[in-house]
Amino acid sequence: MEAIKFTEGKLILLDQTKLPIDVSFVECNDFMCVAQAIKEMKVRGAPAIGVAAAYGLVLAAYEYKNLPQKEFLTKIREAATVLKETRPTAVNLFWALNRMLKVLEKEDILVKDIIEKLEIEAQKIHEEDLAMNKKIGELGQELIPHDAGILTHCNAGALATAGFGTALGVIRAAYQQGKVKMVYVDETRPLLQGARLTAYELLADGIPVTLISDNMAAYLMQQGKINCVIVGADRIAANGDTANKIGTYGVAVLAHYHNIPFYVAAPTSTLDLSLKTGKEIPIEERNPLEVKKIGDVWIAPKEVNVYNPAFDVTPHQLISAIITDQGIIKPDYSINLKRMVSNEL
Amino acid sequence: MEAIKFTEGKLILLDQTKLPIDVSFVECNDFMCVAQAIKEMKVRGAPAIGVAAAYGLVLAAYEYKNLPQKEFLTKIREAATVLKETRPTAVNLFWALNRMLKVLEKEDILVKDIIEKLEIEAQKIHEEDLAMNKKIGELGQELIPHDAGILTHCNAGALATAGFGTALGVIRAAYQQGKVKMVYVDETRPLLQGARLTAYELLADGIPVTLISDNMAAYLMQQGKINCVIVGADRIAANGDTANKIGTYGVAVLAHYHNIPFYVAAPTSTLDLSLKTGKEIPIEERNPLEVKKIGDVWIAPKEVNVYNPAFDVTPHQLISAIITDQGIIKPDYSINLKRMVSNEL
Repeated sequence: MEAIKFTEGKLILLDQTKLPIDVSFVECNDFMCVAQAIKEMKVRGAPAIGVAAAYGLVLAAYEYKNLPQKEFLTKIREAATVLKETRPTAVNLFWALNRMLKVLEKEDILVKDIIEKLEIEAQKIHEEDLAMNKKIGELGQELIPHDAGILTHCNAGALATAGFGTALGVIRAAYQQGKVKMVYVDETRPLLQGARLTAYELLADGIPVTLISDNMAAYLMQQGKINCVIVGADRIAANGDTANKIGTYGVAVLAHYHNIPFYVAAPTSTLDLSLKTGKEIPIEERNPLEVKKIGDVWIAPKEVNVYNPAFDVTPHQLISAIITDQGIIKPDYSINLKRMVSNEL
Repeated sequence: MEAIKFTEGKLILLDQTKLPIDVSFVECNDFMCVAQAIKEMKVRGAPAIGVAAAYGLVLAAYEYKNLPQKEFLTKIREAATVLKETRPTAVNLFWALNRMLKVLEKEDILVKDIIEKLEIEAQKIHEEDLAMNKKIGELGQELIPHDAGILTHCNAGALATAGFGTALGVIRAAYQQGKVKMVYVDETRPLLQGARLTAYELLADGIPVTLISDNMAAYLMQQGKINCVIVGADRIAANGDTANKIGTYGVAVLAHYHNIPFYVAAPTSTLDLSLKTGKEIPIEERNPLEVKKIGDVWIAPKEVNVYNPAFDVTPHQLISAIITDQGIIKPDYSINLKRMVSNEL
């Protein structure tokens, strides 16, 4: 289940638009290919697009390796801008690329030295993400009760990260502890990451899974089948407001109404403390055809108007805890997130 | 937009599983064809299946017209049982068939007289439903504010009834009064009645419509774009608890959280005062393939477990008013629904 692999100077991406029916790969030899793959969501999930973009910049470095140092740096910065403009909401993309761009500030004279440092940095981003996910799972599983019915939305799994997953990392760790009775998976329209990716990951790991349409979650909660909700995140503001896949906010309201804990699991790279609240997080709107067609099948009148926001923001009041690699953060998030980041520094 | 037409001894049903891409019809010459069409949701919507089932019994009468009176009656009652067993949740099916069966109690001697009375009764059920919808619209539109953003779920329109619609009847009437700014339509997974049928109906009438995935409704409410929610109903218990298409309960919770009025529109044939609460309403579970496939496209791993309830029950506490053809009923529903029915009798 390796979504991202950098090998022999190429970036191999598992094409997540084709799963679970086809397991096929995209092979990128240049950064534009990576930018395109991010835009088209062949690689998706906040941490995963950060990792992919970092490798994309390495590919740009290979493409421009014969330029003089100054021109090389200009081209690399331009490539970073192109990669940043692929998707607006997940902050990990900007976080990873900014980390890569810091390498350029070290004033190496030889292009080949810069390239080597970019390679090392991308590799570190990749490996650290996997380690953060493992840590999130280890810490987060303590929140899961025995015999848990868990609801998750979208895919915050191995496919959305460097491996193991954030929300699914917690579920995997809890399952290893024998705590998971059933994972209910929202199919997550319009792009069906729950049905296509999360169901696929959990099945592959032998974790009990039941797929539902998004609009069935409330009924499950009413029946007492859900003990907690765990989701990933695309960006977390300083006050704990969390952008995540469209539909997350609705699930949080439903959990609140049914007195069910609602957890967000994310690596520290998903924090954006430069934003005071979630109101400042840009929300991507995507192509209406994502709603009107599934594969080649039209499911609505061709001429109908569609609204297709890809994310929503869950206000911090609805979040019971944020599970990070640095610890489980509880309210007051404004204080506790800042404290966590300071400790880390 | 005539979903049900009885002509020249045949029942012509608009095949609602094929809309909006194909406009095709099913022609039924016998009651088993009608039973099959109801099961497969070629005709759907609580009032519409009541009307279709009534005509189904007329077709049964034609099939058995050469039997002696006693055997004829037995066969008709058997046919009614077959028709009743097609779907469990919407009460209009049972209501219409019981009304038809009452005709048999009149002790006519000649089979041809019974058949004529069955024809007349089915015709009356059909015409009365249309009239009730018009009345629901006329009464209900008074609840709609000016410049309204209205959310509806599933299809409670002309296609779900004898014409005009219940929830869409209210919207049509409010639109005629110039009150409707935008109708937001939940696509309504798994069978997409919102995307396929409601969007189609509203477009055909030139009413402003925006299609969304079910999981986007909460975000629209958060943005203040929804002023009220109107849905249909499949069965309303004596205390006002209302069974309707899966997802309705979730929308009601979201409306409650955002202080948005939540209205149910239904003809009196949808009331089932024999049930004290919604807990007694049987909830149909349907084929998992409805969730795992769209058309011929697999959207999930073939082997994944699926939960596919077709309805849920919204508790009366979450319902601001029930709009019927006899008036707008407000809480306390236990008292006011009973009072309405008594007045009517």
